[in-house]
Order: sequence, then structure tokens, then C-alpha cells
Amino acid sequence: MDSSEFRRRGKEMVDYIADYLEGIEGRAVYPDVEPGYLRPLIPTAAPQEPDAYEDIIKDIEKIIMPGVTHWNSPFFFAYFPTANSYPSMLADMLCGAVSCVGFTWAASPACTELETVMMDWLGKMLKLPEAFLAGRAGEGGGVIQGSASEATLVALLAARTKVIRQLQAASPELTQAAIMEKLVAYTSDQAHSSVERAGLIGAVRFRTIPSDDNFSMRGSALQEALEQDKAAGLIPFFVVATLGTTPCCSFDNLLEVGPICNLEGMWLHIDAAYAGSAFICPEFRNLLNGVEFADSFNFNPHKWLLVNFDCSAMWVKKRTDLTGAFKLDPLYLKHNHQDSGLITDYRHWQIPLGRRFRSLKMWFVFRMYGVKGLQAHIRKHVALSHEFESLVRQDPRFEICTEVILGLVCFRLKGSNQLNETLLQKINSARKIHLVPCHLRDKFVLRFAVCSRTVESAHVQLAWEHIRELASVVLRAEKE
Amino acid sequence: MDSSEFRRRGKEMVDYIADYLEGIEGRAVYPDVEPGYLRPLIPTAAPQEPDAYEDIIKDIEKIIMPGVTHWNSPFFFAYFPTANSYPSMLADMLCGAVSCVGFTWAASPACTELETVMMDWLGKMLKLPEAFLAGRAGEGGGVIQGSASEATLVALLAARTKVIRQLQAASPELTQAAIMEKLVAYTSDQAHSSVERAGLIGAVRFRTIPSDDNFSMRGSALQEALEQDKAAGLIPFFVVATLGTTPCCSFDNLLEVGPICNLEGMWLHIDAAYAGSAFICPEFRNLLNGVEFADSFNFNPHKWLLVNFDCSAMWVKKRTDLTGAFKLDPLYLKHNHQDSGLITDYRHWQIPLGRRFRSLKMWFVFRMYGVKGLQAHIRKHVALSHEFESLVRQDPRFEICTEVILGLVCFRLKGSNQLNETLLQKINSARKIHLVPCHLRDKFVLRFAVCSRTVESAHVQLAWEHIRELASVVLRAEKE
Repeated sequence: MDSSEFRRRGKEMVDYIADYLEGIEGRAVYPDVEPGYLRPLIPTAAPQEPDAYEDIIKDIEKIIMPGVTHWNSPFFFAYFPTANSYPSMLADMLCGAVSCVGFTWAASPACTELETVMMDWLGKMLKLPEAFLAGRAGEGGGVIQGSASEATLVALLAARTKVIRQLQAASPELTQAAIMEKLVAYTSDQAHSSVERAGLIGAVRFRTIPSDDNFSMRGSALQEALEQDKAAGLIPFFVVATLGTTPCCSFDNLLEVGPICNLEGMWLHIDAAYAGSAFICPEFRNLLNGVEFADSFNFNPHKWLLVNFDCSAMWVKKRTDLTGAFKLDPLYLKHNHQDSGLITDYRHWQIPLGRRFRSLKMWFVFRMYGVKGLQAHIRKHVALSHEFESLVRQDPRFEICTEVILGLVCFRLKGSNQLNETLLQKINSARKIHLVPCHLRDKFVLRFAVCSRTVESAHVQLAWEHIRELASVVLRAEKE
Repeated sequence: MDSSEFRRRGKEMVDYIADYLEGIEGRAVYPDVEPGYLRPLIPTAAPQEPDAYEDIIKDIEKIIMPGVTHWNSPFFFAYFPTANSYPSMLADMLCGAVSCVGFTWAASPACTELETVMMDWLGKMLKLPEAFLAGRAGEGGGVIQGSASEATLVALLAARTKVIRQLQAASPELTQAAIMEKLVAYTSDQAHSSVERAGLIGAVRFRTIPSDDNFSMRGSALQEALEQDKAAGLIPFFVVATLGTTPCCSFDNLLEVGPICNLEGMWLHIDAAYAGSAFICPEFRNLLNGVEFADSFNFNPHKWLLVNFDCSAMWVKKRTDLTGAFKLDPLYLKHNHQDSGLITDYRHWQIPLGRRFRSLKMWFVFRMYGVKGLQAHIRKHVALSHEFESLVRQDPRFEICTEVILGLVCFRLKGSNQLNETLLQKINSARKIHLVPCHLRDKFVLRFAVCSRTVESAHVQLAWEHIRELASVVLRAEKE
């Protein structure tokens, strides 16, 4: 395919994409396929000679689309949103064409420098404390990670290196293994599974702190665990607090947890993967109070801020904490400027070496929406979740399970878990809308997450009518 | 921006991309900017109201392009190639539009299933042993990682978990820390820095095996290290062999190293990040002999197989080894089919949770080029590197430093390291071509890597003429 054919096929693809997104409501949000559906539909090996482009395009509708869960459908209310916007897609096209690999400053200076500045822009939108910004001479700064899981892991590794070096400086006879055996990290029982996973990878134990009745990690519970562990000779070093948990969008109490971390010299990482986007609205910024106590903070613009996956924004107060955990400098990656204070080599900030020019997506989205446009997007979703909440509250057969703060509503039929499992099964097999469940303590709960950029009140109303009808069927069957 | 504006702007972007790539030869391959160049060119904060799209587009040429290292320029001979092809860009556009997040099968069945089948297609192209393929009921299979660094880390973590479980099964009193303290991993002194980094992250020691005169890790050197370590009470568990090292594209001796790993019960991971693509050509497939001894194998189609970044292909013989290292199952990620043998939940195979629909890029590229088209691309690059090699050999002032096997030529001026450093400095500050150096033992060496999809003999000839002229200048200055 030469450039003139690309001009033609690229424009067709642009139309296909616009058609897809305009018509997405007409597709079943959840696919009707069984595991293994795809393999029999395509050849067992790659063709020796090129296929015709037309055949590939035909296969998209014939083979791919029937197996796609349509995350951008306005009837998709599962998990959390995945961002999708036209400005972001345009930027991603450009990123693919430039296809530089920005592992060092020299490997593509624009790629590194735009990222640093975009992370400052975003930090300012959130009113992050100055210490997290790179500015012209700051010690902190931001980096785009691929996912919140990586951000948590990178924070844990930085904290682990830091505490090992501190302890070895004081007692040079201590081995790394002897220290690691005693390290303890803490997180709430509501934290995302990727937090526990970071502990597995980093080979340090995680202790789970029981959350309170609002599914929030409180200072007292953390303090109690710390005291026990210190008394047992262990070394607390790392805390992950969550703002906007995955099960029910609850918030750990940063104003209690933060000072404890500072006092005890523990690294505090904040995972606000979903909720972080909302903090650009002044009315939600209070949910971030206490961030000043943190060493690192992360959220995913690729969830709720209209920047397509992947774009996970992470800030640290001391960039040397991250780079110190990883720095290795082979000659083929050295360059003239690298010892300048102005240089950022992002490969020292992350797990992979290579990286795309992802900041272009932030640049396009922030400029094409403006801060006000992004705030409007967040506010629309929050309003829709409250609309859904009030619909649920009007039906006495249902209950709301946790306070609705942002775009997630946790609800259930009053009654047994079995009843609710049956209801969810019916909802998802009808394929008109898509939801996923969670457990809150011993209760099986349905999660209604406002997700799509194009979801409107009418979709929420339709979804609720559909849920009510299926609930009636389920309740009727139970009585029989 | 609504869909009708996207139709217009998307088509303009397609033309911009085609113009960029058609005209890339006219741009200086390496940018003429100093660290910190970008920040003063853009506002200090995001706009409140939307900017005009025209202004963003103007800023691309004004602000971004002057700071871009043009990896796709036919005058780019630095690092290793980064893939860039039109079919891949088209697929990536589609991937961005669908923007499903394929962490589980249910989150988008097509995303998971196409990946499994594409990894089988690619494995067959390489003639990988059957055990690495998923097929309909295999125990192995492939996964797309973001980078070779992640693949190495994932392999190390799987190996670490496996050996810890084995030892604890035999001696339940052993703690994880007690075992980890004794674990030793091995790799050649020519291995990529990401291998050592995987050891830092996984908190296990890496021992570096001295390579032979051809920069190859040999069985005897590995065996010697093993014996020493075992005698010292340590536990060898993991070996990373490299096919196509970054400094000079040398090859570890798999036929010697592999049987040792099998005999000693050590996990063998093969990192063929760059060279792997060449193995689709029968005349280079012998370089992969010995892969049958490996537990995991990885290479980067995003380097040399025309699939845009990111697409790092990793295969394992036993998928349960990977998933066993990571498996955590919160309710919101459970789905109906997950215990079926046909199901792959790729989140258990990797560090991040989220993942793009990257297999679309493989599907488009494999079908639009056909295996023969991809082989032709590899062969063109190898022929060009031999052409450059023969030019160098004709000039008695220069020497070739290592055997030229694929698309990389390591060469230098006969004489001091200082002389060669000066030459490289002159080359890169002239900005007509771009090279990076390496160290081979105590020698400073220039690397000439054939990179661009569009590079032709004429570019190689021009590059060589340019290097010769600068060499004359440097040699003249030395004599004065």
C-alpha cells in the first residue's frame, strides 16, 4: 500500500469510524458469541500473497464486530468508562504517523517535552500542589503511564528502593532480602486488585485494612494495623489510598491517612484511576483534599477525560525517587544533554523502555474541549447518575447501596443475592444494556456506571425501564 | 467536535500524514533544539474555552515538528527500526474508534480471540515449535505485550513464582524471602539493560555471563557460573538468552545454552526483540534453532515487521505458568465463561490490566503484505546493510567490528575511541543522518542500523559519502 492508496483508504476509514460511532446505538452492546467463535471464521495461517483490502474491510463487519463489546455504546453501563473522543483519535493518528519512540529526550525531544508540559497543564486543572509540577526547575513532575496498575507498581518499586537504601545506609550489614522480608504495604479492602498484584510483583506483603461502613479506609484502622506490625518487628513503608474505588466509588479518608503516612515516613500513593477526572470541577475538588500528604498521585484520563486509551497520568513530588529505582545507562541510550537539569529521560520513570507520543492526545483534547468543555462532560455524567439514582429510589422493590458521588450507582433488588444474580444474568443476556456486578461485604450488588460520551437522559430512562421489566419477571418467577 | 467535523478533519489528517511521510526526506532527521525548547512556545495552562482546530494544526509544524527525531526518515540509522506502515496505521485508527479494553474475554471477545489467532499465525510464520501455539487445545500460546522489557519481566516473575512454589512444596518451612535471597538469574554481558532492570524489579540477582569473541553467550561460560553459584548454595532459576543483541546484533548460542537450562530445570527466556522478525525468512530461520529448549520467546513486530508500536509478541509453552504468577479474580471482572478451557483472560498474562485491540494491526499488516511481502521487507534491509558493509570495507581507514548478519553494521575508524567519538559528534550535529554508538569491550563503535521502511540503496550511498567526508575532516584535524 503506497501513500496514494493510503489517502484513499484512510479517508474511507475515517468515514467508517464516523459511521460506526454514529450508528453504535443500533448494535447490541454485548456480543452474542461463544468462546472460540472466531478461529473457525478465519484461515489457519497468514496468506503468502497479499489479500485484497476490500476483503479485509468486509471481514470487519463479518468477523470482528459480532464479537465486540461496544464500550462506546450509550447503553454500556459496565466497569468504568473508557475515553473516546474525536480530537483524541485525530491526535492518535498523528502519533502513529510520527511513530517516534520517546525513551530518552534525544530520541524525540518534542515527545518528552510536550508530555512534561501537558502533565503540568493537567496538574493545574486539578489544582495539584505545586510540588507535583515540573515547571522550569521543580523536583516533581508528571509522566504518562500505560495504566493505573503500572503507576501503582512504579510507586511501590520507588518506595521499596527508597526504604531499602535508607535502612542499609543506617545498617550496612542488612541484606535486601532481610529488609524485604519485613516490609509491609497497606491498602483498603476496597482497593483494586492491581494493588495486591503490585505487591506480588514487588515481592512485598500487602496488608488489607478493613474499610468503614462507607467503604472508606480510616486513619484509626490504619494506625491499629501499623502498631501491630511494628510491634511484630515489621517495617511499614507504603500505603495506597484509593479515591473512587472500583466496586462502589468510595473514598479513603486522605485527611486522616495522609498525616499518619507522613509521620511514619511511609510512601503514600493515591490511586484515583476513575474519580481523578472529576477533580477538574471545583465542586468535586474537595474530594482530593489531602493530596498534599502524598508522594505520588495517579488517575486515568483514558477513563473519564476523553483521552483515548492509553493515558494514565502519574505525578511524583520527587522525580529522583522514581528514576533512582530504575536508572541504568547503556551507551546506545546516552546522549549529549542527559546531565542537564532540563532533561527528562522518561524511560527511567516507567516499566517499559519504548513509549508512544501519547501527550499529543492530551494536547488535542485539552485544546479542542477547553477546560469548560471537559467539566461539562463530567457534570453531565454525574447528573445522569443522580437521575438514575432517583429513578431507583422511586421503586420500593430496589435499594441504593452506597452514596452516589460521581458517575456510579450501586443498587440491588431488596432480597437475596441469588435474586440479584438472576436479575443481572437476565439483563446481560438480553444484550440491550450491559452491567457488571460487585460484592459489598456479603451483598451481591449491581453497578450502573455512566460511561459513554454520547449517553443522554433518554438512554438512562430506557435502561431503567428495561431493568424494571426484567425485575418484574424475576420477582414473579421467584413467587411461583 | 461532532462526527461530521471529524469526517472533515480526519480526512485532512490522512492527507497530512501522507504528506509527512512522502516528504520526510526533506526534513532534518535529528532536531536542532536545546532542552527546554518547547515550554516557552505554548501557554502555561490549558485554555478555558476551546481553541480553533486550525491553530492546533498550525502548531504541529511550528512547535512539534521542529523537536521531532524522524524515526521514519530514510536517513535514520540509529537504535533499531520502529515499524511504520500504512495498513498498520489504518488498523490503529479502527482500534482507536472501537476502543474496547480487552482485559477479559467478556470485555471484548473479538479483541482476545483475534489476538490468540494472530499470535498463532505469527508463530507459524516463524516455524515455532507446536508447543508455543494455542491452537484449539494447546497448553501454550501467545500474547501481545507492550514492549520486550515487559515480556522479560513477565517471564522472570513466572519463573520466580514457579521455583518458589516448587521449593516450598518440598520444604514448607522455607519463606519466600529465604528463597529469593538465593535465586540467581543469568544473562550475557551483551544483553539489553531491560534484562538487568527486570531483575531489579523482581528483586532477584542477575549474574552476567562473559560473552565470547563473537559476543555470544556460550554453554561453557554459563555452566561455569552455575557450578560456582550452586557450590555457594545459590539457586539458579532463570536464563535470558538474546538473539540479536542491541549493541552488535550478536546471537547467544541456544544449542549450547538451551540443554543446560533444561537439565538444570531453569526457565529459559529468549529475547529476540529486533532479530525475531527475520526468522520469517527460511534463510534466517536457523538463527532460531534451539528455541525448542525455551519456556518463553519474545520479539517485537513493532521493530521490524511493519506493525506500528506497540506490539511485542511473546509466546509461552505453558500458559498456566504465566497466569499462575498473577491470577486474582475480583467479582467485577468475573464472567460466565471464565472457567471454560477456550477462554483466555489476557489480564493474567501481563503487567497492566487494560489493553488495546492491538491484534487488528497484525491482521491488517499480515493480510496486506502477505508473508512474501514481509519477507521482501526483511531481505531488502539485510541487503542494504551488506551493501553498507562492503562500502566500509573498501575504505582502508575503517574497520568492520562484528559479523554483519541482519540489518546492523558495527564499524569504526581504525584508531582511538576519541577519534570515533569526534566523528560521531560531527555526524549527528550535521543532522543529515542519525546514528548512535555502542561499546564493544573497550572499543567505541558506530552502529549503522537500516531502519526506515522507505530506505533505498541511494540513501545508504549518500550516508556513506557523508560519513567519509566527515571522517576526512576528523582525520585531517587529528594530524594538525
